[in-house]
Amino acid sequence: MPTLVQSLRQTSRELQALRAAEGLLGWDQETHMPPKGGVTRAESQAALSTVLHQRLTSDKLWALIGETGSQSDLSDREKALVRELRRDVEKARKIPEALASDLARTGSLSQQAWAKARERNAPSEFLPWLEKMVQLKRREAECLGYVESPYDALLDQFEPGSKASTIKPVLEKLRDGLTPLARRIVDASAGSATTSRSQQGGSIPIDVQRRFNERLLHDMGFDLEAGRLDSSAHPFTQGLSPGDVRLTTRYREEDWLTAIFSTLHEGGHGLYEQGLPDEDWGTPLAEAVSLSVHESQSRLWENRVGRSRAYWERYLPIAKEYFGAALDGVTVEDVLAQVNLVKPSLIRVEADEVTYNLHIVLRFQLEEALFSGALEVAGIPDAWNSGMEKLLGIRPTSAAEGFLQDVHWSCGLYGYFPTYTMGNLYAAQVCAAMEREMGSLDVKIRAGEFSVMREWLRNKIHRFGREFSAADLMHRATGEDLNPEYFLNYLEKKYL
Amino acid sequence: MPTLVQSLRQTSRELQALRAAEGLLGWDQETHMPPKGGVTRAESQAALSTVLHQRLTSDKLWALIGETGSQSDLSDREKALVRELRRDVEKARKIPEALASDLARTGSLSQQAWAKARERNAPSEFLPWLEKMVQLKRREAECLGYVESPYDALLDQFEPGSKASTIKPVLEKLRDGLTPLARRIVDASAGSATTSRSQQGGSIPIDVQRRFNERLLHDMGFDLEAGRLDSSAHPFTQGLSPGDVRLTTRYREEDWLTAIFSTLHEGGHGLYEQGLPDEDWGTPLAEAVSLSVHESQSRLWENRVGRSRAYWERYLPIAKEYFGAALDGVTVEDVLAQVNLVKPSLIRVEADEVTYNLHIVLRFQLEEALFSGALEVAGIPDAWNSGMEKLLGIRPTSAAEGFLQDVHWSCGLYGYFPTYTMGNLYAAQVCAAMEREMGSLDVKIRAGEFSVMREWLRNKIHRFGREFSAADLMHRATGEDLNPEYFLNYLEKKYL
Repeated sequence: MPTLVQSLRQTSRELQALRAAEGLLGWDQETHMPPKGGVTRAESQAALSTVLHQRLTSDKLWALIGETGSQSDLSDREKALVRELRRDVEKARKIPEALASDLARTGSLSQQAWAKARERNAPSEFLPWLEKMVQLKRREAECLGYVESPYDALLDQFEPGSKASTIKPVLEKLRDGLTPLARRIVDASAGSATTSRSQQGGSIPIDVQRRFNERLLHDMGFDLEAGRLDSSAHPFTQGLSPGDVRLTTRYREEDWLTAIFSTLHEGGHGLYEQGLPDEDWGTPLAEAVSLSVHESQSRLWENRVGRSRAYWERYLPIAKEYFGAALDGVTVEDVLAQVNLVKPSLIRVEADEVTYNLHIVLRFQLEEALFSGALEVAGIPDAWNSGMEKLLGIRPTSAAEGFLQDVHWSCGLYGYFPTYTMGNLYAAQVCAAMEREMGSLDVKIRAGEFSVMREWLRNKIHRFGREFSAADLMHRATGEDLNPEYFLNYLEKKYL
Repeated sequence: MPTLVQSLRQTSRELQALRAAEGLLGWDQETHMPPKGGVTRAESQAALSTVLHQRLTSDKLWALIGETGSQSDLSDREKALVRELRRDVEKARKIPEALASDLARTGSLSQQAWAKARERNAPSEFLPWLEKMVQLKRREAECLGYVESPYDALLDQFEPGSKASTIKPVLEKLRDGLTPLARRIVDASAGSATTSRSQQGGSIPIDVQRRFNERLLHDMGFDLEAGRLDSSAHPFTQGLSPGDVRLTTRYREEDWLTAIFSTLHEGGHGLYEQGLPDEDWGTPLAEAVSLSVHESQSRLWENRVGRSRAYWERYLPIAKEYFGAALDGVTVEDVLAQVNLVKPSLIRVEADEVTYNLHIVLRFQLEEALFSGALEVAGIPDAWNSGMEKLLGIRPTSAAEGFLQDVHWSCGLYGYFPTYTMGNLYAAQVCAAMEREMGSLDVKIRAGEFSVMREWLRNKIHRFGREFSAADLMHRATGEDLNPEYFLNYLEKKYL
C-alpha cells in the first residue's frame, strides 16, 4: 500500500510524463515539423493540453493534495512538494477547460503565423493572431485573479509572486543607470573605431560549426548523452527530463560567433535542467523554480563566461583548429571587439550586455499598457518604434526588426520578458558570490575548469527544484536579497 | 447542434490527435532522442497510451457509436465509419487498462534494450525482454479472443480477418515455388560471376546521399513539404497526418545503393499516408486499410520500380551528377547486377526479391510455434538458426545476423511479418492491373512519368482509407481476388 506522499508523487509523475509529450510536440514544431503538419499539430497540442487540464483539475488530485498536506509528519521537502502542487492545481482549477484548450490550439497556430509573417516582414498577417492571443490572455488573467493589475496574474506564471508595481521601479532605476552608462561607453570607444574582423570572407559550413558548438557544450559540462543541440529560427531550451534536454541555436555561415552565444545561453539553461534532481523527476521538486533564476543561469554562461577575455584566450586557438583558414589572422582582440561592442541596436537577442535591458524595458512598458487597457493591439507597431527611439535612440525600419522579432507574444508568453532582466541581475550577484568562495572566475575560465563552477551552481541552485521560493533560493545561494548593484558594477568595471 | 455523425467524427479526431502525439514520441525515440532519455520516454508512452485507452473504451463513445449506427439515413461511407470505429472500440474494450499501459511501457523499454543488444551482439541482454513481451502478447491474445489459435488474435491486428490457417497454405505454396526458382536463378547466373562495382573506393558523405534520396522521393511524388526523411537504425514510416509523414532510411557511406531501396520502400508507404483523404483525417476513413495493402505500396516502388532496368537507365546519369567521381565508370549493368543479385543471405531487409519471402516463412513458423506453445522464448535463437539453414541453406554465425536483426518482436509486433509477403503478392497483382490500363510500366518509369502511377494508386487504393476491407479494396482495384501467380510470373519473367 503506497503512502499518501508516494501516491501524490506518482500522480504528479504521470502528469509530467504527459507534459513531456507536450514538450516534444512543441520542440518538434520548431525544429523538424514539415510546414504542412501545422494544422494537425495544433490539434494534438490542444488535445493533450485538454487531457492535462482535466487531470490537473480533477477532484481526486485536489483531495489527495489536501489529505497529504494535513499529515503532521511531513519532511520539509515533502511540505514543499504539497505546497507547490497545490499552487499549480489551484491555478489550473481557475481556468475553464475550453479556455485551456483554446490557448493551446490558438497558441500553436499563432506561432506558425508569426514565423511566416516575420519571414515575409508582413505585420498585417500576424496582427489578427496577436489580437486573438491578447484577448485569450486577458480572459486567462481574469480567471486567475489579481489584486492590482491583470498583468500581475501573467507575471506570476513565470516568476511566482512578482508584480508590475515591484518590477517597475527596478527596471526604471536600471534604465536610469544604463542610459548614461551606455553613452559613456560608446563615447569612450568612439576614437578606437575598429576595423577588426572575426571571420575572413567566405562561409563556415553549419556542420563544422555544429561540431564546435557541441564541443563548447561538452566542455561546460552539458551531457550530450542526456540532451542534444539542433537549430531553429528562435533558439530555445526544452527540457523533457534531466536525461533529455534539448537546446537549439541559430547558425550563420558568414559569422561563426552568432551561434556560439545562443549555444552558451541555452547551454546555461540546459545545465539547470540536467541538474534538477533525477530522483524527483515528475514533481515540482525537480522543476526550475522561476524563469528569472533560469535566466540567471543562461546569462551567466553567455555573458560572464562567454564574453570574457579569459574565455577567448582559451577557445580562439581551439576554434582555429575547427575552422582553419576562415580564422586566419583573427586575434583575441578581434573577437572581443565584436562580442563586447556596445552600440544601440534593433534586435534584442543580438544586443550587447549594456543596452540589452533597455530592450526589456520597452517590452515591459508595452505589456503593461496592453493589459491595463492603455494600448490596443493595433497600436503596438507604432508604440514599439517610438519606444525604441526614446530608449535607444534608433528606430526600426521594418516590422521584422521591430515588434515581429520575438516569438513570445505569438504563443502567449506575456510577462515573460522581465525575467530576462531579473536573470541578468541575479547572474551578476551569483558570480560575485562564487568569486568570494572560489577566487577569480577568470582564472577558472582560462584553465577550462568549468566543472567547479557547474558543481557550485548545481549544489547551490539546481538541485533544489522548487523547494524554496526564487527569492529565498537566491538569498541562500548568495547571502543577500536581489541587489542590482552587482550588475551595474560588473558593467562599469568591464567596460570603463 | 452537431449531428451524431459530426460528433462521432469530432471524437475520433481528438483521439487521432493524441495518437499523433504518441506517434511522434515513437518516431523521435528512433531518430533523435538522446540515450539517457529512454526511461522517461517509456513513461510518456505509457501515460499517453493509458489516456488513449481510457478515451477509446469510454461508455460515452460506445453509446455514441451505437446511436449513430442505428440511424437509417447513413451514406455508405458513414456506415463504414461507424463499422470501423466499432471494431476498434470493441477490441480496445477487451484489453484492461493496466495491460494496455504495460504493453506501451514495456514495449518502449524492450525496444531500447533490443537496439543495444543488437549493437553489441548480446542476445542474453535481450532475451528477458523478449520473454516479457511474449507473455504480455499472450495475455493480450487471450483478452482479444480467437477461434482457432491465439496467434490469430494478433494477426487480426495488422490484417483484419486473417488467420494462421489461411496464411499457412499460401506461404507453403510460395515456399515450394520459390525454393526451386531461387536455385534455378542462382545456377543460371553461376557462370556469369560478376566483378562489377557500383561504387569506386572511398565514401560518399551522407549529406550528399540524403539530397539524392530526397530527389528520388520528390520525383515519385512524395511531398517534402508534408513530410521528411531522416535516418534510423531500422527504416520505418510514421504518418502523423497526411500533412506530416515521416520516413527514415539507413545510409552507408561505402554503398550508396543501400539507402536508396529503403528510401523507395518507405516512400511507397509515405505516398499511401499522404494519399489518405485529408478531409477525413482523424477517422478510420483516413487510415490505411491493412498492413498488407500498405506493404504492397512500399514493395511496388522498391522492387517493381526501383530494381527495374528502366529506373536505372533514368537515374544512373542523375546519380552521377550528385556523386561525381565515386561513380566513375559505373554502368547500368553494374547497378542491376548488384540490386538484382539473387543469393541466399542472412538479413531480411537486404534480401533479394526472390529469397525475401523465405525469410518471412521462417518468422511465420516461429511466431506460430511461440503462440501455440510449441516453442519457448529461450529456444528462439536455435530455432532461428536451424530454420535459416533449412529454408535458405545458410546459418547465421551471430545473433545480430540472426534473431536480433528485426525490431518487430521487441516492441510487440507479432503477426506483422506475414503482411510483408502478402504485400509482395498484392504489389505484383496491382502492377499487372496498372499495365492493363496504362500500358508498359517500364515506359513510364524510363520517362519519369511517376505521377500517372501515383494518381492511379491514389484513386484506386489510397483515397478509400478503411471504407472497404483489404480484400474488397484489392478486388476493386485489380478485378480479382489475391492471386500469387502474378508474383511468381513476375519473378520468372524478370530472372529467367
